[in-house]
Amino acid sequence: MKTCLDCIPCFVKQSLEMARMVFDNERHQKQFVDQIAQLIPSFSLNSTPPEMGRMINQKVAELIGPKDVYKEVKDKSNAMAMAIYPKHKEMVTQAEDPLLMAGEIAIAGNVIDYAAKNTFDIEAEVAKLFRSEFREINKTRFDYPQFKKALLKAKTILYVADNAGEIMFDRVLMEEIPGSVAITCAVRDKAVLNDALIEDAKTCGIDQRAKIISSGSDAPGTLLNLCSKEFLDLFHSADMVISKGQGTYEALDRAKRDIFFLFRAKCPVIAQHAQVRLGDLVLIGNDQSQISNVK
Amino acid sequence: MKTCLDCIPCFVKQSLEMARMVFDNERHQKQFVDQIAQLIPSFSLNSTPPEMGRMINQKVAELIGPKDVYKEVKDKSNAMAMAIYPKHKEMVTQAEDPLLMAGEIAIAGNVIDYAAKNTFDIEAEVAKLFRSEFREINKTRFDYPQFKKALLKAKTILYVADNAGEIMFDRVLMEEIPGSVAITCAVRDKAVLNDALIEDAKTCGIDQRAKIISSGSDAPGTLLNLCSKEFLDLFHSADMVISKGQGTYEALDRAKRDIFFLFRAKCPVIAQHAQVRLGDLVLIGNDQSQISNVK
Repeated sequence: MKTCLDCIPCFVKQSLEMARMVFDNERHQKQFVDQIAQLIPSFSLNSTPPEMGRMINQKVAELIGPKDVYKEVKDKSNAMAMAIYPKHKEMVTQAEDPLLMAGEIAIAGNVIDYAAKNTFDIEAEVAKLFRSEFREINKTRFDYPQFKKALLKAKTILYVADNAGEIMFDRVLMEEIPGSVAITCAVRDKAVLNDALIEDAKTCGIDQRAKIISSGSDAPGTLLNLCSKEFLDLFHSADMVISKGQGTYEALDRAKRDIFFLFRAKCPVIAQHAQVRLGDLVLIGNDQSQISNVK
Repeated sequence: MKTCLDCIPCFVKQSLEMARMVFDNERHQKQFVDQIAQLIPSFSLNSTPPEMGRMINQKVAELIGPKDVYKEVKDKSNAMAMAIYPKHKEMVTQAEDPLLMAGEIAIAGNVIDYAAKNTFDIEAEVAKLFRSEFREINKTRFDYPQFKKALLKAKTILYVADNAGEIMFDRVLMEEIPGSVAITCAVRDKAVLNDALIEDAKTCGIDQRAKIISSGSDAPGTLLNLCSKEFLDLFHSADMVISKGQGTYEALDRAKRDIFFLFRAKCPVIAQHAQVRLGDLVLIGNDQSQISNVK
């Protein structure tokens, strides 16, 4: 998915949010926003939004070194998600279709997105998603039958995770996948926004069900040209790829292989592109059935 | 009121909206946004938002000449407001307190604000404001008793208008002011956003009740340092000043004279500054009772 003009004010807003996390005083915050503003002319509309997000992140690193700005936010998200985990497991156990419920929980967890929403209460947001009327309404595109079919056929799955905290919701889904299936969970290579790193995956016990790897990409999404050989080999060879989050959808929606994209539509530009409504729980299977075209 | 950091992404968004009105293709729209982005480092947080808005407007004029970009939008707003006018007059006639109703209509008309809201249906927006439950709820600060008292004492009133279309709603209020009171209605000097100009005031028949003048300011607000001597003389000497819109509130909230600010709170930064809720109908009387301090 390409960057559109509407992404530009949003990048400026994100850079302000980041400036407020990094700098104590308004003068320095303004200087940071000024520097991001200077980058705007070099933002190409042919790039994907995660490429632009990466530029902002690199500017932060240039200014303050490789500090993990969102460390505290991520730790808090992990802790909150771990606290809700038993409740989610119970919901799955009691569900008529446990896999469906686990999938919905994993997608609902995508609400933990510091970049798209600054202040939130995870538990309340997630509870809202599970109100009685919700599960039927907010699914304009929800390719669950295809997802289930692909999953039952798969022997190897690459699960591209998104945010810290959210990855604990992903664990609920991973645990509903038959034990005979080998799952590899890919996380970001370096700190970028609140995206999950290897330590977050370990904190959330992902290693109890999946092999954890770094994708090699330090963009807030999964840019294939930045990914490691290990990741790319798996990306091309896995029977099934599950992609979490808007960033990876933006980066991979044109990738030439079947991918299931699971995310909550938090951005109006992405919602329009995906032909869903803002706020939707989204499960899109981009069934290309053209495996021979995989690049 | 000073510009705050949150205004910056909003300026970028406004510049994109303007780019889309001025340029047909995405490449030129992007180039315009790029140029505004280059101005951001020169935006001082000690300036008022209308000063920044003026910079954007000057950049447009520099690029495309003194074209009235919003002419069509303004003509449409005037026409729509004129069509609703008889209904508003009837509402006033039937009201228990006609002046209060006329004031509410004038403030409700401030919903016509292209800069703050891109797509709208004036009549529907205004109708929404007058639903039964509305009139009591959305008034955190509504200094009507002071407003009425000042108005009944005044012999001369300076009425600083805001947007085209909205000025037709202002006419409803002006017509409830006793005929013995001399009203001067000030509009912007040159085209800026959808702000009312002399021709809009004439189109809406303001000259049937008030003398129309230009403020001398071409900012989307009323910056005293840009205003004409005629305006400033009236500003200082009028018994009462009525200021419409957020832009003039931003520009004049610290002015050293009594002013009644009438606007709808459409911007979260202004709402917070004015200590009202977003969406409120606002009537603030900044009673300084220090006329000797007028500068």
